[in-house]
Amino acid sequence: MMDLKFVDGLIPVVVQDVATRDVLMMAYANAEAVGLTDKTGYAHYFSRSRQKLWKKGEESGHVQRVVRILVDCDADCLLYEVEQQGAACHTGHRSCFFRTVAGDEIAGKVFDPAKVYANKGL
Amino acid sequence: MMDLKFVDGLIPVVVQDVATRDVLMMAYANAEAVGLTDKTGYAHYFSRSRQKLWKKGEESGHVQRVVRILVDCDADCLLYEVEQQGAACHTGHRSCFFRTVAGDEIAGKVFDPAKVYANKGL
Repeated sequence: MMDLKFVDGLIPVVVQDVATRDVLMMAYANAEAVGLTDKTGYAHYFSRSRQKLWKKGEESGHVQRVVRILVDCDADCLLYEVEQQGAACHTGHRSCFFRTVAGDEIAGKVFDPAKVYANKGL
Repeated sequence: MMDLKFVDGLIPVVVQDVATRDVLMMAYANAEAVGLTDKTGYAHYFSRSRQKLWKKGEESGHVQRVVRILVDCDADCLLYEVEQQGAACHTGHRSCFFRTVAGDEIAGKVFDPAKVYANKGL
């Protein structure tokens, strides 16, 4: 694997749906998350708010199978090309980018977050 | 415009080609850069290394006409959908994501950076 540039231990990751080619989300990964993604073939990230490594879909079942990992010219950003199970966004939208900057919604929900995330803490 | 979440004054911006749907690059913008992008219809960013606002293509001519600006669920990341003039990457590749994380090149150059950036400092 190429040498990657981490800032404060993290590298931003852009996530693209290989089927629709929609940009699904942006998240951060640490070296361990990148390594696990590469090894397991499933997207892993590092949550800045929770300060822990997470596997996408570990709670919702909406996993991302990573078909290819690309790196940008400066090696300070990654692109995961994924097969998205369910939806990428915790709001129920397929992509996290479901609104224009003016606030207009461009895509509806594909699942009900209240059902998918219900009782998961029990 | 929606309220955006800036961290240290910056918000990450993913840039996607509206024609090919390739992810072209990732950069950062401050509030002024987002405002100028929205107002002029051309992509502006903030350079962390040079600590200044810049218009994409101001030197190379490889400007990005912004067709739409999307915002993610947490309002802490933007997606510029652009018509890319020339190429997005300073290396001469159309997209900054021209290599796999293993180091394999997946796309060739579309311009010679030595020619495009030559004498621009004079």
